[in-house]
Amino acid sequence: MASSKNAFYAQSGGVTAVINASACGLIETARKHRNRIGKIYAGRNGIIGALTEDLIDTSRESTSAIHALKHTPGGAFGSCRYKLKGIEENRAQYERLIEVFRAHRIGYFFYNGGGDSADTCLKVSQLSEKLGYPLQAIHVPKTVDNDLPVTDCCPGFGSVAKYVAVSIKEAALDVASMAKTSTKVFVMEVMGRHAGWIAAAGGLAQQRVDDAPHLILFPEIPFDQPAFLGKVKESIERCGYCVIVVSEGVRNAAGKFLAEAGTQDAFGHTQLGGVAPFIANLVKENLGYKYHWAVADYLQRSARHIASQTDVEQAYAVGKAAVEFALKGHNAVMPTIVRKSSQPYKWSIGMAKLTQVANHEKFMPRDFISKNGFGITPKCRRYLAPLILGEDYPPYKNGLPQYVTLRNAAVPKKLKTGFKL
Amino acid sequence: MASSKNAFYAQSGGVTAVINASACGLIETARKHRNRIGKIYAGRNGIIGALTEDLIDTSRESTSAIHALKHTPGGAFGSCRYKLKGIEENRAQYERLIEVFRAHRIGYFFYNGGGDSADTCLKVSQLSEKLGYPLQAIHVPKTVDNDLPVTDCCPGFGSVAKYVAVSIKEAALDVASMAKTSTKVFVMEVMGRHAGWIAAAGGLAQQRVDDAPHLILFPEIPFDQPAFLGKVKESIERCGYCVIVVSEGVRNAAGKFLAEAGTQDAFGHTQLGGVAPFIANLVKENLGYKYHWAVADYLQRSARHIASQTDVEQAYAVGKAAVEFALKGHNAVMPTIVRKSSQPYKWSIGMAKLTQVANHEKFMPRDFISKNGFGITPKCRRYLAPLILGEDYPPYKNGLPQYVTLRNAAVPKKLKTGFKL
Repeated sequence: MASSKNAFYAQSGGVTAVINASACGLIETARKHRNRIGKIYAGRNGIIGALTEDLIDTSRESTSAIHALKHTPGGAFGSCRYKLKGIEENRAQYERLIEVFRAHRIGYFFYNGGGDSADTCLKVSQLSEKLGYPLQAIHVPKTVDNDLPVTDCCPGFGSVAKYVAVSIKEAALDVASMAKTSTKVFVMEVMGRHAGWIAAAGGLAQQRVDDAPHLILFPEIPFDQPAFLGKVKESIERCGYCVIVVSEGVRNAAGKFLAEAGTQDAFGHTQLGGVAPFIANLVKENLGYKYHWAVADYLQRSARHIASQTDVEQAYAVGKAAVEFALKGHNAVMPTIVRKSSQPYKWSIGMAKLTQVANHEKFMPRDFISKNGFGITPKCRRYLAPLILGEDYPPYKNGLPQYVTLRNAAVPKKLKTGFKL
Repeated sequence: MASSKNAFYAQSGGVTAVINASACGLIETARKHRNRIGKIYAGRNGIIGALTEDLIDTSRESTSAIHALKHTPGGAFGSCRYKLKGIEENRAQYERLIEVFRAHRIGYFFYNGGGDSADTCLKVSQLSEKLGYPLQAIHVPKTVDNDLPVTDCCPGFGSVAKYVAVSIKEAALDVASMAKTSTKVFVMEVMGRHAGWIAAAGGLAQQRVDDAPHLILFPEIPFDQPAFLGKVKESIERCGYCVIVVSEGVRNAAGKFLAEAGTQDAFGHTQLGGVAPFIANLVKENLGYKYHWAVADYLQRSARHIASQTDVEQAYAVGKAAVEFALKGHNAVMPTIVRKSSQPYKWSIGMAKLTQVANHEKFMPRDFISKNGFGITPKCRRYLAPLILGEDYPPYKNGLPQYVTLRNAAVPKKLKTGFKL
């Protein structure tokens, strides 16, 4: 019976353009090893699906539907923001997991997520040792934030990076055309609450001196208003226009998010808007230039239509490697991307222990940000450039991408008890 | 001498992902008729280039550079927002145009823009009759707003429509994944100050009942807050989430832009943010759902990476037709797109008189908007669907689209006088 245990797979946290590519790599690989892995059950809405015994039978999906996951953004089985406490703090949660896993003969636990999820996966990996239930837990890395340690980069990031670099390049051509008599400043807000990786990727659009973006605002660098305004003025006087990428996580010297600082009125009422309109307005009020601003929000992390081929391949590869690690008997590990060389770009799959991964965030090194704090360094560019390489277009029909919607058939429940989340 | 007059071409108003494709069609076609058309001079920053004798010699651009315009967004020669007054009101402007045109032996005037530009082009077309300077003026249609009359659609619109439909489809997959424990409402703001064509295009993403977008807010329909909130609640109860496309031009019953109504505090201070954050906040305050919002702004109209092949072809075709019309001796006309059939989509080039085009805006017909005001009708879908057909990807290098930057060499000035704008 141990030779054909079932597997559990779940998606966790914010989804990406390529998290389903990892699901695809994982399921396609597992299906090749039916002698060792029976069925692959997916958690409906992540770990919640395990706790509530709401499992999806992926064996009901056709080969072509599973293959189409490789080009479908979002989380095909549903994701969740739900963090497990420690085994000691909430033993009932873990006992429930064991109850569900035992009922469905689950011996492999694959968890596809970012830093918080790696922590959850680490806890689940201890079920075997601490609660005597035999289980192998493998974490599959995913996060647009690119903030997981050990791995050279995180699947999901390369595609956001490409989206942001392409979008900035395009919008800059627009602004440059209009600058003589109209818009002179364009501000694009991108994700990255704690780390500036995504904002930095905007810098890839700058291929020649004076190309956009002219300024990047990083969460790592406290916002210096006079220096910023001086740079905007300088850019407009030199180039005729100014394109700014701003990370949602930019803070003032007091450590407060600009977006929040700018969105409360004198009475403390919350006002509307993100950091892009705040920055744009600041420029208008102090320098008088006409502006436009954009907030890409979910568009950036779901933009499968302009995904990085490198990212898609890496997302698939970590899903595949997770199964291979499991078959080799590993527990509490995560496949990583190992960079062999930057130019030409070469990478392979490595392995990290979850104890090295959980609860460690990787920030932008200071030497990736230019001295004045408003741009990226050549070192940063060398790191980022390979991650956006290649296009991997989804198939289209009638002008729209053909993304798959799975059947997501429920596995019949075996337990009589429910579970209150 | 009349047999080899030079041509003037200028880009006007907000640029698009395909206005340069029209420039490409125009220049490539004109270059085939050197016996009739000498040089093609482009106005640097639109008509301003003519008034200030700031002309660009496009003959200095290589064949491949001109061809690359077909896949390059923005306005390669610079655009402007500058409206000419009537000949009677500002005779000096027109006399200056004649002075510049005469100095550079310009006999053809091609103006690439929207409604305001058609009006300018019409005025310029009267130079011949009213001021005795022989000139043929042809307008080349361009506007993401799709609001020019006579023509079935406007080059530039199809690509924005595709961008919006694809983006909504992708973001919706993201929201659907997160809805169980996190974001339930996603609001995307799109362009369209007066007409809801772009917002309507978001409706193309809805391929099956209950697909996103669940609600579209049009400028043509006064915002009905209780009805809107009721629909949001209904959507979330039925589908688990709600995706909303909102046109920047949505107004309340009093005719005031929501974006403005929502961005002034009680003391009349202007607050930040567009209509998307306003709508998102409204939902949060009244229904309590967690939201995300995006404002695509320039990203939507510069997104050449996901341009509609149909749009690119039509943009090229109107540029080509403009030259052909000129060679046939026409004046004060505009090439139009004539729809022959919707399914399969067939179109050809027609001709409109500028007197029919200037100062007429085409709004969404009421029967393109569903009865409840929150969606599009099958009739609207039949109209829109062909316009996003086909992909026309730009070439990429190192992960980024290869957009051309022209040399834009200045034509030596012949006049001793300047002109104050």
